[in-house]
Amino acid sequence: THICLTKGCSEDEVSKELLKLNDDPRVHGVFLHLPSTSLTSRVLNALKPEKDVDGITDLNMGRLVRGDLSNSFVPPIASAVLDLLEKHGESLLKEIGPKFSISLSVAYFLCFISDIEISRAQTPKPVTQLAEEIGLLPEELEAYGRNKAKVRLSLLDRLHSQPDGKYVLVAGITPTPLGEGKSTVTIGLVQAMSAHLKHNSFACLRQPSQGPTFGVKGGAAGGGYAQVIPMEEFNLHLTGDIHAITAANNLVAAAIDARMLHEATQSDKALFNRLVPSVNGVRSFSPIQISRLRRLGIFKTDPAALSMQEISTFVRLDLDPSKITWQRVVDTNDRFLRKITVGQASTEKGQIRETGFDIAVASEIMAILALADSLEDMKNRLARMVVGTSRSGQPVTAEDLGVSGALAVLMKDAIKPTLMQTLEGSPVFVHAGPFANIAHGNSSVLADKLALKLVGRDGFVVTEAGFGADIGMEKFFNIKCRASGLRPNVVVLVATVRALKMHGGGPNVSAGAPLPREYIDENLSLVAGGCRSNLKKQIQIAHLFGVPVVVALNVFKTDTQAEIDLVCQIAKECGASDAVPCHHWAQGGRGSVELAKAVDEAANRPSNFQFLYNTEMPIVEKIRTIARKVYGADDVELSPEAKSKIDYYNQQGYGSLPICMAKTHLSLSHMPEKKGAPTGFVLPIRDVRASVGAGFIYPLVGTMSTMPGLPTRPCFYDIDLDPVTEEITGLF
Amino acid sequence: THICLTKGCSEDEVSKELLKLNDDPRVHGVFLHLPSTSLTSRVLNALKPEKDVDGITDLNMGRLVRGDLSNSFVPPIASAVLDLLEKHGESLLKEIGPKFSISLSVAYFLCFISDIEISRAQTPKPVTQLAEEIGLLPEELEAYGRNKAKVRLSLLDRLHSQPDGKYVLVAGITPTPLGEGKSTVTIGLVQAMSAHLKHNSFACLRQPSQGPTFGVKGGAAGGGYAQVIPMEEFNLHLTGDIHAITAANNLVAAAIDARMLHEATQSDKALFNRLVPSVNGVRSFSPIQISRLRRLGIFKTDPAALSMQEISTFVRLDLDPSKITWQRVVDTNDRFLRKITVGQASTEKGQIRETGFDIAVASEIMAILALADSLEDMKNRLARMVVGTSRSGQPVTAEDLGVSGALAVLMKDAIKPTLMQTLEGSPVFVHAGPFANIAHGNSSVLADKLALKLVGRDGFVVTEAGFGADIGMEKFFNIKCRASGLRPNVVVLVATVRALKMHGGGPNVSAGAPLPREYIDENLSLVAGGCRSNLKKQIQIAHLFGVPVVVALNVFKTDTQAEIDLVCQIAKECGASDAVPCHHWAQGGRGSVELAKAVDEAANRPSNFQFLYNTEMPIVEKIRTIARKVYGADDVELSPEAKSKIDYYNQQGYGSLPICMAKTHLSLSHMPEKKGAPTGFVLPIRDVRASVGAGFIYPLVGTMSTMPGLPTRPCFYDIDLDPVTEEITGLF
Repeated sequence: THICLTKGCSEDEVSKELLKLNDDPRVHGVFLHLPSTSLTSRVLNALKPEKDVDGITDLNMGRLVRGDLSNSFVPPIASAVLDLLEKHGESLLKEIGPKFSISLSVAYFLCFISDIEISRAQTPKPVTQLAEEIGLLPEELEAYGRNKAKVRLSLLDRLHSQPDGKYVLVAGITPTPLGEGKSTVTIGLVQAMSAHLKHNSFACLRQPSQGPTFGVKGGAAGGGYAQVIPMEEFNLHLTGDIHAITAANNLVAAAIDARMLHEATQSDKALFNRLVPSVNGVRSFSPIQISRLRRLGIFKTDPAALSMQEISTFVRLDLDPSKITWQRVVDTNDRFLRKITVGQASTEKGQIRETGFDIAVASEIMAILALADSLEDMKNRLARMVVGTSRSGQPVTAEDLGVSGALAVLMKDAIKPTLMQTLEGSPVFVHAGPFANIAHGNSSVLADKLALKLVGRDGFVVTEAGFGADIGMEKFFNIKCRASGLRPNVVVLVATVRALKMHGGGPNVSAGAPLPREYIDENLSLVAGGCRSNLKKQIQIAHLFGVPVVVALNVFKTDTQAEIDLVCQIAKECGASDAVPCHHWAQGGRGSVELAKAVDEAANRPSNFQFLYNTEMPIVEKIRTIARKVYGADDVELSPEAKSKIDYYNQQGYGSLPICMAKTHLSLSHMPEKKGAPTGFVLPIRDVRASVGAGFIYPLVGTMSTMPGLPTRPCFYDIDLDPVTEEITGLF
Repeated sequence: THICLTKGCSEDEVSKELLKLNDDPRVHGVFLHLPSTSLTSRVLNALKPEKDVDGITDLNMGRLVRGDLSNSFVPPIASAVLDLLEKHGESLLKEIGPKFSISLSVAYFLCFISDIEISRAQTPKPVTQLAEEIGLLPEELEAYGRNKAKVRLSLLDRLHSQPDGKYVLVAGITPTPLGEGKSTVTIGLVQAMSAHLKHNSFACLRQPSQGPTFGVKGGAAGGGYAQVIPMEEFNLHLTGDIHAITAANNLVAAAIDARMLHEATQSDKALFNRLVPSVNGVRSFSPIQISRLRRLGIFKTDPAALSMQEISTFVRLDLDPSKITWQRVVDTNDRFLRKITVGQASTEKGQIRETGFDIAVASEIMAILALADSLEDMKNRLARMVVGTSRSGQPVTAEDLGVSGALAVLMKDAIKPTLMQTLEGSPVFVHAGPFANIAHGNSSVLADKLALKLVGRDGFVVTEAGFGADIGMEKFFNIKCRASGLRPNVVVLVATVRALKMHGGGPNVSAGAPLPREYIDENLSLVAGGCRSNLKKQIQIAHLFGVPVVVALNVFKTDTQAEIDLVCQIAKECGASDAVPCHHWAQGGRGSVELAKAVDEAANRPSNFQFLYNTEMPIVEKIRTIARKVYGADDVELSPEAKSKIDYYNQQGYGSLPICMAKTHLSLSHMPEKKGAPTGFVLPIRDVRASVGAGFIYPLVGTMSTMPGLPTRPCFYDIDLDPVTEEITGLF
């Protein structure tokens, strides 16, 4: 990640420099700006196509400036170059004067830049301009600074009669621990659709947790020339939705413990006098209390009319401290909060208990945000959230705590999706980011709905599902589409040669360790093995739902043409409508034109969407259906705890909720080390839990960590802010 | 808090209704809109002046519409009336048609409204319009929705040569637990200055913690006709500054515990290999690591050059778990987090320890935000924060943890003050809200500086200090003004008859309990006692700093004219430049015109500002000076712990920091029950702590709670959101 300027270099020097850069993994792309006399064929041939940012090697000079890449969304690339020059090329600037007006015949330099530099070098257009370009009315926009804005839900009313666009889901094969680039494929596809095929097009992405940004993972804005910009705003506070979720989640937690303390230290009468106080001689129930009374079967509205028994039932939630399922959350990788004891101050009168914090995006409130389809729906789901069980075995809800109205107030702005743009100026909604294991791992229903109306009948909305298709896509169909009523037209299945080789029997891939040789050298048999196992199975899973599949091979520089061709060939043999290589990372939208064309074609084929199961099936049957048809298991095996939980949920009326499997994403099975398409296994269900407000049952297949930690040297060591330019370094 | 419409009422009925309303404490003001023929003198005389919102009883009809109250800031009051009608007056609306054009001769109704209804009934002008009115350039504004915006610090450069306006501090006498209305006085004064005296004028307020909004206290946006609007945005997320502080604070906490774990489980060599990893065969220190090396006296920059001893010194912070002073924070009243045990999951290898959470505004980062005068200054302060002590007794800083660059990144937007408006459209900066006990309790230096430039030489900036003048004002002068270099022109000292009676010997006043008779009936001797003790002493404290004092008597409806006159008379006898009654709560700016005139006059008197102590004095002497001169103590008495801490701070070079006393605000002494102006006591200093990044030493006089709790029936029981209108109810 460095920038290097060469001036007056010889043909030899430039070519040698380029050959070195081709193999440097830190160099994401090269701007090659040289006087036309220096652009000899030797120089042009030296630069690998995937590092050629502006396509200078296969096209005539000056095309960027002359607008080949341009569309209404592309901001002037010149400003990027100018910025870089200002920062790194002082000596050069002096030669050509302070008012540098970029043209390829004047500037001659090479520059090699990192993700954050690519992002920073591009000045986003004002979000108000983007909003106008996509047909939003000024009153539908709430700007948050210059680069992002919330969009009001009233848009849905205005465009009520407008037909929806095509709905494209980006899912992936079972990934390596390094990830295979679903986000970059999503962004690249939308950039290609917008700028190159001239289709109205929208990306819908999840908001990433802030915690991992400072831990190991880094940001989630995409990468290379397929990014959401400004990437620091995308990765950090954004418009405060996760902060709102944290506040709402922790208000529930505080209410739970405080209520237990007050119940433990007060008589029924004292509790009643405080909960229903006499104001100027008049006692009355608040509306939220009347809701609780109704659920208790008490239909009186005059506090004076309650019997002592009714008062006791009303005032005591009688939460069983050992059965509180609600955890606190924080949007920080704070491993020491995984298991804690609270209430140890003397003011809490010895009411200590063990509990823990999850990362904020694991909150049920995040899952609700992602599934709600209106403010009212969100409010109702918040009220239904079950926080624990009373000593008599009854579920206790947020509404019982009296807190659900306040939660809706805290979340009233979070429900509006946030509009941003890609590096090439295409529109993006960033909204909600529920965990992909204990929740459903998809961005919000509302963002998709707004986007589908905005793009209109001939447009495309590309949305991304977390993890592999066995998890993210299955939940997208069975949970998200069920909640939204939306029907997908195409699945884009992202694969990499790296992951395919792993599934074909390649050695272990792990973060931090160098990649084994098999992943760097051509190995057609490993590739074929991966295609005929995992890729084939994931295509079949999509077909279970009746949706056509386009395989997008996210090309790395180490992939050979033979490997690429083989993947595309086998993918089509396995039933994919099409299979194409993508170069979005190095080339932006231009690198995804082929994919965009394939998706466009597939979207026009008839699709015959169907759910995998009917929600009225018994819980066990729903779990078994997913395990067999999606994962390839022979059967499921439930622990006694799982069985008794299922009985309890049936008895409480939660039996017809859909299923959200909490399974590793590193294998189709429950065993992360089993790659390819495992068969002959029985899926063990350790426990079953419910997110009643979000509206799903989640069986636990193994243990899911809901709080990441910080390593010895977290990312934050490299993150800094220049106090003068306000530029951020070290985010990636 | 109800609205009542009467149509076609007789003179008798209207008068009777008004007389009832006069005595209803829930009715904050009455809009009296009747056909002119109904405005008989009997009707006009029935309404008490303080409930007369639009001054109809002492002026001719229609003045509101004709613009008496209007200035460029006042939005049409008609829209408020129309909104109320739409909501509550359907039957009436039918009579006069759906396109209701408000004019006093058409509409006839009475309405009685609460704080939230007053706020909601007023449509704020777009913040972009407000920005234009006060001379901000479009590029200096970052809107957050329609009603609030962050203002860029580049403004300070642009207006560098512009002279500052007059700087007015609003402080108070020692309050009752109910509070005496400093915020409403601040807002009322600015409304009067803006709209009535036509001076450029700005209010600078603290951002309230979100926690208490859902607990007992309610919001902090002012009240009645002296509010910041929209009050729900003021009281809830605002522009995310407190959320950013929470994220930054908790990243430090996570870094501390994770680092202790990694140091406990790794050799020096393993730690070094991880902290300074080899990337493509090259090892290098990050800039933040080089800073740490320098502080350790190691001036090498090549990792290979370090000796084993230097490596060990560098990689081991060697934090003493029993001497970690950094707490986690959450912006929720969560009493069960006051004292907790963390690290109990097996993944943390038994590294458990006791710690706790504070409310977010108690974070040192909040104090830093309030005192920083540039991005660079904030970044340096963040780096200097001491989080604990090593086993060898050395302070360990945020920079040692490698996290301070990331903190600056998290706080980069929080440093920009948020622009909002009062009910009458005057500009308000809301920025920072540090605790008034363990921190200095004042809004930000930067907001004051920006505002002073914006109002210009003849304008006024009114800023508020927390608690009574003995705490908030003393810290404003000795800490905030020292950090900012700004010099105040006038102190407005807020008093109430209620608090004065308490200081004069009246019975106990407590929240929740009915007020004793003494506070409702006239009692001149109690009033006089309070004036000659507490009020006099607080005036003298301001004079210690050489600043003129105007006493603002915040008038309640139970105050008699004789009581009001007595306060004003004695205040002037005690040295106040002036003393005037204020009616801003019921009348907005119009009710504070007299105060505005008095402040205007006092600001033109010569002031001779001086600090109370020189920071180079020994720590004990600084504490003693405050205790004697400000609190009236005979002396101070230090615990052995306090003494040894002072020795330690001196040894570490913190001896010349200013002092931030952590003392009860309910008495000038350390004994909350001692009202008036206690003498003959010795102030006990239990312990001494330091906020090295914020830049002050804070001696603890007694125990300070840094985490409020939720009562049996928190405010949230009444808080709700209408999913259709998006209106919030129950906030106050």
